[in-house]
Amino acid sequence: MSTQNVQSKEAPLTKVENEGCLLVKCPDQPGIVAKLSSFLQQYNANIIESNQYSSDPVHGTFFIRIAFYCKNLQQQALEMEQSFTAIAAQYQMSYQFTYAFERKRTAIYVSKELYCLMELLWEWQNGELPMDVALVISNHEDAREMVEALNIPFYYIPAHKGIREEVEAKQIQLMEEYDVDLLILARYMQILTPHFIAQFKSRIINIHHSFLPAFIGARPYERAFERGVKLIGATSHYVTNDLDEGPIIEQDIERVDHREDVVSLKKIGRQIERRVLARAVKWHLQDRIIVEGNKTVVFH
Amino acid sequence: MSTQNVQSKEAPLTKVENEGCLLVKCPDQPGIVAKLSSFLQQYNANIIESNQYSSDPVHGTFFIRIAFYCKNLQQQALEMEQSFTAIAAQYQMSYQFTYAFERKRTAIYVSKELYCLMELLWEWQNGELPMDVALVISNHEDAREMVEALNIPFYYIPAHKGIREEVEAKQIQLMEEYDVDLLILARYMQILTPHFIAQFKSRIINIHHSFLPAFIGARPYERAFERGVKLIGATSHYVTNDLDEGPIIEQDIERVDHREDVVSLKKIGRQIERRVLARAVKWHLQDRIIVEGNKTVVFH
Amino acid sequence: MSTQNVQSKEAPLTKVENEGCLLVKCPDQPGIVAKLSSFLQQYNANIIESNQYSSDPVHGTFFIRIAFYCKNLQQQALEMEQSFTAIAAQYQMSYQFTYAFERKRTAIYVSKELYCLMELLWEWQNGELPMDVALVISNHEDAREMVEALNIPFYYIPAHKGIREEVEAKQIQLMEEYDVDLLILARYMQILTPHFIAQFKSRIINIHHSFLPAFIGARPYERAFERGVKLIGATSHYVTNDLDEGPIIEQDIERVDHREDVVSLKKIGRQIERRVLARAVKWHLQDRIIVEGNKTVVFH
Amino acid sequence: MSTQNVQSKEAPLTKVENEGCLLVKCPDQPGIVAKLSSFLQQYNANIIESNQYSSDPVHGTFFIRIAFYCKNLQQQALEMEQSFTAIAAQYQMSYQFTYAFERKRTAIYVSKELYCLMELLWEWQNGELPMDVALVISNHEDAREMVEALNIPFYYIPAHKGIREEVEAKQIQLMEEYDVDLLILARYMQILTPHFIAQFKSRIINIHHSFLPAFIGARPYERAFERGVKLIGATSHYVTNDLDEGPIIEQDIERVDHREDVVSLKKIGRQIERRVLARAVKWHLQDRIIVEGNKTVVFH
Repeated sequence: MSTQNVQSKEAPLTKVENEGCLLVKCPDQPGIVAKLSSFLQQYNANIIESNQYSSDPVHGTFFIRIAFYCKNLQQQALEMEQSFTAIAAQYQMSYQFTYAFERKRTAIYVSKELYCLMELLWEWQNGELPMDVALVISNHEDAREMVEALNIPFYYIPAHKGIREEVEAKQIQLMEEYDVDLLILARYMQILTPHFIAQFKSRIINIHHSFLPAFIGARPYERAFERGVKLIGATSHYVTNDLDEGPIIEQDIERVDHREDVVSLKKIGRQIERRVLARAVKWHLQDRIIVEGNKTVVFH
Repeated sequence: MSTQNVQSKEAPLTKVENEGCLLVKCPDQPGIVAKLSSFLQQYNANIIESNQYSSDPVHGTFFIRIAFYCKNLQQQALEMEQSFTAIAAQYQMSYQFTYAFERKRTAIYVSKELYCLMELLWEWQNGELPMDVALVISNHEDAREMVEALNIPFYYIPAHKGIREEVEAKQIQLMEEYDVDLLILARYMQILTPHFIAQFKSRIINIHHSFLPAFIGARPYERAFERGVKLIGATSHYVTNDLDEGPIIEQDIERVDHREDVVSLKKIGRQIERRVLARAVKWHLQDRIIVEGNKTVVFH
Repeated sequence: MSTQNVQSKEAPLTKVENEGCLLVKCPDQPGIVAKLSSFLQQYNANIIESNQYSSDPVHGTFFIRIAFYCKNLQQQALEMEQSFTAIAAQYQMSYQFTYAFERKRTAIYVSKELYCLMELLWEWQNGELPMDVALVISNHEDAREMVEALNIPFYYIPAHKGIREEVEAKQIQLMEEYDVDLLILARYMQILTPHFIAQFKSRIINIHHSFLPAFIGARPYERAFERGVKLIGATSHYVTNDLDEGPIIEQDIERVDHREDVVSLKKIGRQIERRVLARAVKWHLQDRIIVEGNKTVVFH
Repeated sequence: MSTQNVQSKEAPLTKVENEGCLLVKCPDQPGIVAKLSSFLQQYNANIIESNQYSSDPVHGTFFIRIAFYCKNLQQQALEMEQSFTAIAAQYQMSYQFTYAFERKRTAIYVSKELYCLMELLWEWQNGELPMDVALVISNHEDAREMVEALNIPFYYIPAHKGIREEVEAKQIQLMEEYDVDLLILARYMQILTPHFIAQFKSRIINIHHSFLPAFIGARPYERAFERGVKLIGATSHYVTNDLDEGPIIEQDIERVDHREDVVSLKKIGRQIERRVLARAVKWHLQDRIIVEGNKTVVFH
């Protein structure tokens, strides 16, 4: 193995618009990678990054994410997708193509605590989150100023248990109107109905303020304080009908000690929540996540 | 603040036998530190390390650990303790004096998995755990060779649910015979009765192979696998009558991903269990832990 | 040791204005803690937090930080300080009293990269940094808008090697005019002269974008990339005449791998720099740091 | 994407003897993955794990590691390798095939400090390091008992600067005699000559007891103490002629504070050295590392 140096990518020769991503899940068998890579080669696509996982090499399920670079991708995408259907049928694949030229459109839901929203907007402004922020929805007015200062539409929709269906009807209508791909619950403190969740399967990301499955439900910091844990955490997950039981995307923790009270636990926890949610959203936007049963395969 | 350099402790001028430790818990009020430090000064004791915590400076509970150095400590200890009773009464203190010249005597309980036992013996041989290993008790023969090679008495006491009382009677007798201060459950997979636990309040340390309160009870790695968590952990705690609910001493975690199966989770978990248990035991031996309700104050 | 529960501090009975802090350094000998705690008791001061360190219990240097609560502290402070001079002389102490009612006044110096400034302002707005931001100084105009939006005076002082003395003269004048206690170099990319530094001994905190002493000097991320390190870091330190050689306050790191180029190393590094600088500043503001030679004692 | 659950690998249907690994480095161009995967498909090999990296998708260097499962691999390996030469020539590949049925043979070099040796032997006995320990070489007798108890040949070869060539001649002879693939310097405190190193390019792994490039050379813990760093680390790297300058494989750190003296820094450092070296050796044994210039690509 030779000796030339790894080059810096500081001056890439490629255009980001020409990058695409193919996610595939299918029964494992020999030859899948050969098939997929030959397919991409027909379009002169260069594989930039490829990650795969198989739950068992003989009878398991096979998962692959291939990021590729392809000149004039926008012109070729439709034909590529059409010609892929035959392969997909042959190998019983579920799959999706995504393209850098089609940025995902997101709706951020928030209540009174704004730090998660701020983190997302900050990272988005820094270019770390390749998304269009289509709108922000809140059951309080607190976030309006910050959101509108960035020229993002802000919708105040008061919410409580008694008017849940009416509220969700408005929200669903806005999701359609703004053509939203991903819903982010950035500390939105309202329960969603199964009807709502069913519209957006594996497309709603929530941040829960504990290390799940510890402290499922309400008041996790208070309960962490009472239990005297030495680490506190946060969990981002896709939302399902079972509260705090959806597929986990990312978790992280910080060390605490006996000196922390509930107020300081919350302050420490905020930092964890911010980075855990931002990572989960980033990975979703980069098509790094495949949901499998109640788990996630996350390709880093 | 001046400029001379912090010296290395490589050549201490002190003898470790002259080190003592005073742990105190009492209602908070002004003047406690003054009282305690004046008391120690009467014996020409030099305070080496002092840590304190108050749950509230006005109406809270005050906790302090003072490590001190005192020439001819062994000769002075009795008088010191006698004269302290007046202060303790005045301030309603619960307290304990401990001395480096009286090493704690420990019993290690183990079943078939030996890695936690090995870690403890390794650290003990390295001088990291200031204890006498009085004996090892197991419901299997696996550990005998390793233990006896170090000239530590090994007792094989078969155990199962049906003979629990008989087994514990033997164990209690051995604890008395060997004058044991601390019991370490280093992956001892038997339930203890309230009768047994009552004999050794805040003196039995267990290692649980999950990040409590997640996955209380049996098969935590299997359940962590099924839930798809992204971090796994271990917890050391004092044993109480409520299974896995005792005061937590230490916790730690490692990052895992979708590629881990139950076997590899267990391998990763072993490393966490080893270090979490070793730390908890070390802090107990150094009198750094005060149990308060169902929590611990740990002075680092 | 009894069983009542550790209380939450959520509703403290104390006023923060009545909190003070005493930092002491002196030759170690028995009785110092007794002396200090008796002194505070005369003023009915309750010790909230106490941390100490001795480089050697017999012939070493003794360091202590005592945070205390004292009714009507503002009225008593002057007398307290005057009466302390006798003790200080007797024990050859260097020391300082500080009070919550006298917030430290800071000047933040910045160039074109604003993320460290933003972090400090964010944390300050969250109440995490107990300081008055007296002014911001920059050799570029980039920060003006953000700073003035918070009603903080912003001074644009163009700087380059050729006019260093003139620039520093202006800066020193502003430090006096605004009565500044602490200077924070939040990515201020100009070398300071010994004359300037001498005015503010142990009062200038810098953030260096590497894990010192690795990659001292310019272009640390580029050099980290070339060396192929697997972790990158950041270091906050007090500024001395030797570039990047001053007493280290805090360091932290993140894991990286071969896929990172210089651009992505810088992005990752930014997150480290932000939190390392914010922690160092916080500890300085809380009087948790004692400089000793070219090292720091930091009481957590 | 559907809903069946990720299966546990607890009962694999495959035999580890049939696993192989192909490492490739070549100029990047479209179609490499297609070529390699088609090649493997001819042998009915199933790709278990695949990782790739390109320094630049257009003009960069392409690296790939493919782990595959192939029935009767031992019978097919020779033909596979012969038929691969044509592809390798066409794409200007440097490459290597390795097989689970050919375990790497290692020599461990050690001096008086045995904790790194112990860690390697422990992990090897636990089945974590897929290698044959061919022999242990030391310039001291300390390790003999521990090594011979495991039926591993132990060679005592006294060493000092004056007899370096003679010593190395003996060592090289032993490496040949025992057909050694990998040399591990587990705290072997002797400088190796360029002549020796040239025999084993990218096949000698060293553990350095600092976070390189900080504290290159001797006495790193003493120098870390003097500098007052807040984190200490360890680095494993391939050995080159430039002392402590070879390609870094892995690094890790632990947090320390002002209370640590040189003795306690060394104790903390030992734990870091143990795990950093064990990880680097494991990744080498699993063919996860490609050396590129003075860096490593490590496929996790």
